[in-house]
Amino acid sequence: MCDACLPPAPPDRRTVEEGTDLLPAFDSAGLVTCVTQHADTGEVLMVAHMNGEALARTIETGEAWYWSRSRRTLWHKGDTSGQIQSVVEMRVDCDQDAIVLKVRVGGDGGCCHTGRRSCFYRTVPVGVPVEKAILKHTEG
Amino acid sequence: MCDACLPPAPPDRRTVEEGTDLLPAFDSAGLVTCVTQHADTGEVLMVAHMNGEALARTIETGEAWYWSRSRRTLWHKGDTSGQIQSVVEMRVDCDQDAIVLKVRVGGDGGCCHTGRRSCFYRTVPVGVPVEKAILKHTEG
Repeated sequence: MCDACLPPAPPDRRTVEEGTDLLPAFDSAGLVTCVTQHADTGEVLMVAHMNGEALARTIETGEAWYWSRSRRTLWHKGDTSGQIQSVVEMRVDCDQDAIVLKVRVGGDGGCCHTGRRSCFYRTVPVGVPVEKAILKHTEG
Repeated sequence: MCDACLPPAPPDRRTVEEGTDLLPAFDSAGLVTCVTQHADTGEVLMVAHMNGEALARTIETGEAWYWSRSRRTLWHKGDTSGQIQSVVEMRVDCDQDAIVLKVRVGGDGGCCHTGRRSCFYRTVPVGVPVEKAILKHTEG
């Protein structure tokens, strides 16, 4: 087996953390985590996952694509609901296993399958014993 | 085996999504995903993970605790660096497998192990072929 036939060495840490190459660190399921926030307010709308294809389509189209773990399919967010997420900015973290999307949302502006604007519609109290941590609805 | 001896039934979807009980949906590794953002600017600082103990300590102390997957230990963020994250608001998503923390950061205000304020210090271009997606440093 010649050197050219060997699989490429994994990128070293400095290349991943300080370089300008996109080198996604997919987990054992082939996914990276994606945090999607509203481009204007910073509100976190959802946390989802992307495989390589979803990541590539998001970059190329400027609209958010995810991998649906429950349905095991590529998922063009808003395809049926009209809640298309147009990407204003995309960021990647130090070890390249997480993505941030800053988006504007089409259709009725919703994001969560429960009908709300954001999936994070409940607060958790802090500074209390965990058994007294009663969630509080703060949206619709 | 009597009814009282049986393990409790998993909570139904409506209870998880619409209820006021904290019912974290830990993954197979016993973790939920945590997105930590700056309470004042909305900037996403980091994405990390919490096991039950980290979640409970965060709720009870009002400071961010995580589970370090690489070191396999509980991790009180800032314990050595002084970059303690004081929780201003904590939120949970629809299916309770993700947490958002809005924090203020102690010490020098940093968060990333590379020394930066946020782990998301590089942008990914959109609207380009993925092979031309060259990252751009936007901080430090």
